[in-house]
Amino acid sequence: MRAMVYHGPGRKAWEEVPKPRVTEPGDAVVRIDAVTICGTDLHILKGDVPAVTDGRVLGHEAVGTVEEVGPGVRTVKPGDQVLVSCVTACGTCRFCREGRYGQCLGGGGWILGHRIDGTQAEYVRVPFADTSVYPVPAGVAAEDVLMLADILPTGYEVGVLNGGVRPGDVVAVVGAGPIGLAAIAGARLFSPSRIVAIDLADSRLEAAGRFGADTAVNNGRQDPLAVVHELTGGLGADVTIEAVGVPEAFELAVELARPGGRIANVGVHGRPATLHLEKQWIRDITITTGLVDTSSTPTLLRLVAGGQVDAGRFVTHRFELDEFPKAYEVFAGAADTGALKVVLTR
Amino acid sequence: MRAMVYHGPGRKAWEEVPKPRVTEPGDAVVRIDAVTICGTDLHILKGDVPAVTDGRVLGHEAVGTVEEVGPGVRTVKPGDQVLVSCVTACGTCRFCREGRYGQCLGGGGWILGHRIDGTQAEYVRVPFADTSVYPVPAGVAAEDVLMLADILPTGYEVGVLNGGVRPGDVVAVVGAGPIGLAAIAGARLFSPSRIVAIDLADSRLEAAGRFGADTAVNNGRQDPLAVVHELTGGLGADVTIEAVGVPEAFELAVELARPGGRIANVGVHGRPATLHLEKQWIRDITITTGLVDTSSTPTLLRLVAGGQVDAGRFVTHRFELDEFPKAYEVFAGAADTGALKVVLTR
Repeated sequence: MRAMVYHGPGRKAWEEVPKPRVTEPGDAVVRIDAVTICGTDLHILKGDVPAVTDGRVLGHEAVGTVEEVGPGVRTVKPGDQVLVSCVTACGTCRFCREGRYGQCLGGGGWILGHRIDGTQAEYVRVPFADTSVYPVPAGVAAEDVLMLADILPTGYEVGVLNGGVRPGDVVAVVGAGPIGLAAIAGARLFSPSRIVAIDLADSRLEAAGRFGADTAVNNGRQDPLAVVHELTGGLGADVTIEAVGVPEAFELAVELARPGGRIANVGVHGRPATLHLEKQWIRDITITTGLVDTSSTPTLLRLVAGGQVDAGRFVTHRFELDEFPKAYEVFAGAADTGALKVVLTR
Repeated sequence: MRAMVYHGPGRKAWEEVPKPRVTEPGDAVVRIDAVTICGTDLHILKGDVPAVTDGRVLGHEAVGTVEEVGPGVRTVKPGDQVLVSCVTACGTCRFCREGRYGQCLGGGGWILGHRIDGTQAEYVRVPFADTSVYPVPAGVAAEDVLMLADILPTGYEVGVLNGGVRPGDVVAVVGAGPIGLAAIAGARLFSPSRIVAIDLADSRLEAAGRFGADTAVNNGRQDPLAVVHELTGGLGADVTIEAVGVPEAFELAVELARPGGRIANVGVHGRPATLHLEKQWIRDITITTGLVDTSSTPTLLRLVAGGQVDAGRFVTHRFELDEFPKAYEVFAGAADTGALKVVLTR
């Protein structure tokens, strides 16, 4: 089969690799119907995630059709269309029993396209299938469900829920890429008074407006601290969400928070940041980090099926699987192409 | 009257200053019966708190007797013995109404010995007396109540409550000075499975054992990460509490936390710290900072009155007010003198 293979920082290829097979009783092999590219894949290609080594098939988001299951699989069968989530869960370890699937100690967590071969391929092997894939609900487009493989639960859990967004809050979102937009869409569900989107690209800020941001700040031209302070009587935002993954964005997110505010880091970071404790020790702030657990996936599937969350509007570009190299170019060049999520189908 | 006056980094003097008077309707002037020195005062003397300027009377902890009140004071009268809390609260601003008195926007917060003259003197003016002093309960020694002016609520609120200590937790406390010991005593109330105290001074580690720590680690000789990992199957502590106020201690506290763990910063910092987001972005950690609100003071007064918290054991040295310079020497030289809290009385 063909797959997108990582060959060290800056190097990847769409090339022939062996087709995966069931190797453990809980495995499913899924034929990929639709797959996408994540900002995290770009972080991997920059070398930010050293656990990903030469030869790894990339990708951790897909919708596909089950082709084969191991003898231990009880809940899906060949022919079922399923969401392959970015987080695989053994379902039995301490953290899985707490719903903290992202921290699975039993061989799961974020492993696809990271520690084992991923979804940017014609087929993928998914361990612990019973607790790692979700049947696609009737009447929901595969492309919409694909947005629940990573970005929607990540923005919702690691941004909105960790940030503790509540009605009336002023929420500042640093970074209006797909994850930042997912956080904006998720924050809207909690009726904030105002969402401020901050990005360097006007095209992304326009998208932020469509997803529910009330105020757009291009921080190449405007001072986001001045804008947020003007909106909040000089106090700062109730919640800030970092959705970039560079130290400057994190440091800005901290600076934008009010006393007693919460800063939810969603970005994938490759470098340390400076935490200005000499200013912040006294300000009652709460900083959270996190990998998505996908514990909200069933809830988000209901919200998408019921039309309360419009997942389809993330998709800006469509390709066939064999166009993977071009899809990467378009996605990585988002500032010029306006790409949010690119979808590749058979 | 005589008072301990700050004269810039490294300089202070016990000298004659004007006696304070009631200047606002809500003021009380309190004659000091017992006063102590805080680690924060040492941070101020190092220059870590630049808001404290030349000429400021230091100190934010006292028990005293009300001498005079303004016409707006309703709940205390001359002759009453009261606890003067480190946090002054206007009682009416947004943050005071949320119980977040430390962030008072109405002219309160931590102001004594910081933005206005403090308690290391024969008399102190306390603004907003109705919401900033607490009558000393009958049958409780003034010296015990004095420990509630700052260290007990700070360790409890900013360390234990922010850290979310729960039964069965492994709690690591970095720094076993008075605040670290207060955090240990507070954590005990939540039945953790184990408290690990980490300090460079053996005398403080011995004190930590008396206050309820199960394991003592001298990080000048032992690797605290190895000890905590051995106790937790390699995962790390459920809660870590930073009670020093230097970047190295904060960075250690972050490193010691398990995936999903909480890091409560209590220390007063004068320099930024490095936050290793390249490791921590994926680990579901929560970092909190905070100034004490003293919202727990009534609860802690009940616990002290009922014998569930032994406040008296913090006091290792006693002086008269005129011995203030010597008391500072003994307190600052705690590594040699074994001082925890020093108490000065008339």
